[in-house]
Amino acid sequence: MSSAPPNDPGSASRPRRLLILAEGYSADPHYGKTARGVLRYRREQVVAILDSERAGETQDGIPIVGSVNDALCFNPTTALVGVATQGGRFPPAWRELLKSAIAKGLDVENGLHELISEDPELVELAARHRVELRDLRKPPPGLNVPTGENLTHPAKVVLTVGSDCAIGKMTVALELDAEACRRGIASEFVPTGQTGIAIAGWGISVDAVVSDFAAGAIENEVIEAGREAEVVVVEGQGALHHPGYSGVTLSLLAGSCPRALILCHAAGRDRIRTAEGSPREIPIPPLAELARAYETAAAWVQKAEVVGVALNTLGLEEPAARAACEAAGRELGVPATDPVRFGARPLAQAVLALRGRKLAPQA
Amino acid sequence: MSSAPPNDPGSASRPRRLLILAEGYSADPHYGKTARGVLRYRREQVVAILDSERAGETQDGIPIVGSVNDALCFNPTTALVGVATQGGRFPPAWRELLKSAIAKGLDVENGLHELISEDPELVELAARHRVELRDLRKPPPGLNVPTGENLTHPAKVVLTVGSDCAIGKMTVALELDAEACRRGIASEFVPTGQTGIAIAGWGISVDAVVSDFAAGAIENEVIEAGREAEVVVVEGQGALHHPGYSGVTLSLLAGSCPRALILCHAAGRDRIRTAEGSPREIPIPPLAELARAYETAAAWVQKAEVVGVALNTLGLEEPAARAACEAAGRELGVPATDPVRFGARPLAQAVLALRGRKLAPQA
Repeated sequence: MSSAPPNDPGSASRPRRLLILAEGYSADPHYGKTARGVLRYRREQVVAILDSERAGETQDGIPIVGSVNDALCFNPTTALVGVATQGGRFPPAWRELLKSAIAKGLDVENGLHELISEDPELVELAARHRVELRDLRKPPPGLNVPTGENLTHPAKVVLTVGSDCAIGKMTVALELDAEACRRGIASEFVPTGQTGIAIAGWGISVDAVVSDFAAGAIENEVIEAGREAEVVVVEGQGALHHPGYSGVTLSLLAGSCPRALILCHAAGRDRIRTAEGSPREIPIPPLAELARAYETAAAWVQKAEVVGVALNTLGLEEPAARAACEAAGRELGVPATDPVRFGARPLAQAVLALRGRKLAPQA
Repeated sequence: MSSAPPNDPGSASRPRRLLILAEGYSADPHYGKTARGVLRYRREQVVAILDSERAGETQDGIPIVGSVNDALCFNPTTALVGVATQGGRFPPAWRELLKSAIAKGLDVENGLHELISEDPELVELAARHRVELRDLRKPPPGLNVPTGENLTHPAKVVLTVGSDCAIGKMTVALELDAEACRRGIASEFVPTGQTGIAIAGWGISVDAVVSDFAAGAIENEVIEAGREAEVVVVEGQGALHHPGYSGVTLSLLAGSCPRALILCHAAGRDRIRTAEGSPREIPIPPLAELARAYETAAAWVQKAEVVGVALNTLGLEEPAARAACEAAGRELGVPATDPVRFGARPLAQAVLALRGRKLAPQA
């Protein structure tokens, strides 16, 4: 990005050396997803992981420590809250952890809904120790409803959509963006959640924007990214079939006005994972029906087509994973891959094959 | 409602005598919709309307005054911000108006996104003059994602949905609720926006809730209303085809889990009214296609059916209005009426004809 992005966690003057706070969750693929995302895509910035249940182990070659004190020998500059809890609130024990990090002189980056920069006790402590508290999810001021300006730039906008939450929509977007960049295409990843923001260093967490301005916030991001990029890859959120998050998903569709959709799915998952204890049972429909749902919803504002399928095949043996991708591709008649396992090449090719967009007439 | 509702604007100790602030907008059906809604459904509480452009006139028999000073002879207790601006911000001149109302000892109720209760200057002034500042749109604390509990009560939940914003979804819900009550049915109106809250005296403004919790907020309201009501009529918001507000609309569908939908439409309108100057042109699809879109979106979580059409026939001569209702009813094969003009009876009958809901098994 050429201009100063909103909510820039990279604005601190010293280079980030991250201590990832993942107490109790470092091995959890769902609730530890911020930790895992940053480990995968910004590994060079991570010096240690805090999880007292696994102190002394390593993860992806990074040492796991049991306390902030034990991490200090790795010279961290910043403690990053690496967990994503249901509803975005802090487990109670975390307050002590945050206070400990601040007292040891670490900046804190937090992606939960609960804002540390508005917590009087933490703010006072941070001022005393001259550290910054950065809430990655805090929306920038001045948001509004979308204007339609996102119809006036020629970039190819791609949105990752999916069958459920936490199945890899951010990862697919990052892999697609990286593959496009490797091919010399001016591609830009647009983060829309706390992990994407922690990775990319800018962005708006759409789920924390008041619902009236969610689509407008995404439009702002896409316009910003589309100024110089040929391809804009927007990180999807939620799922149309998930009752908790479908509104966010539709705001993303309406606000980003994608030309193309990548349909993401966890191979073998057949039910939406709703809140614990929920009396709900929501089956995930077949892929072709899912694709139709997204194309239908997109067309309420502007037509978009599913141009590829990204399967998360974690847990499948390789032959089964390849067979699942082939079956998905056959079912939808578009390229299908697990971009983490087999590369994002077919998805990038499908996106690049899109013709240039006809611009809407200027007002 | 038997228990204390959230965000209760009626919690002030003295009975409300309203001065409606509608400066420049008292005659505007769109931006003055809060003023008009309260005038229609809580007329007995309104003592004067402020609009200096029309000072000396009356509206619906209520005197229009040019300043707060000129209103004092009518003994108002409360100034209600009666306008709904694009994006929910105050026109600059309004700050002086609000200060004037506070200085004259009036409580202020405000439904815009811009919160008066967090404005240091207004808060200080209000403290000095011992008046209350109430933000109708400010969400209550403790919201979260929906739990599915809204599937465990037997009330018939009805949601008003529509072809665009500001076409009467709140009015239709209020008329339907009133008609059900007249028939002795335990019916409850669930407000979801600032005007509905100003009228009903409780409720959550879903468009001001962070998008992650929008569906959960509505679920809370519906559960609260459904404890003692047989019919729960939820005020709809936005439209699936409106890029600015479709996320809110889908959150309402997913969070309220309606059994029945009333499709609202302004007769003759063929395009969505997007932001001024927008390069967008979004046609409103035929009614049958609209109904299918809402039934499709509802079914992503739980099936619902369009059981009636409410046409806003404002501006049509009576024969044309009746013909439009008949045509709409024929197109969809369900009762159609303009409930303001011809009564909500056919809609109430359609809702009451629904069979009791089969409850989902308890977890």
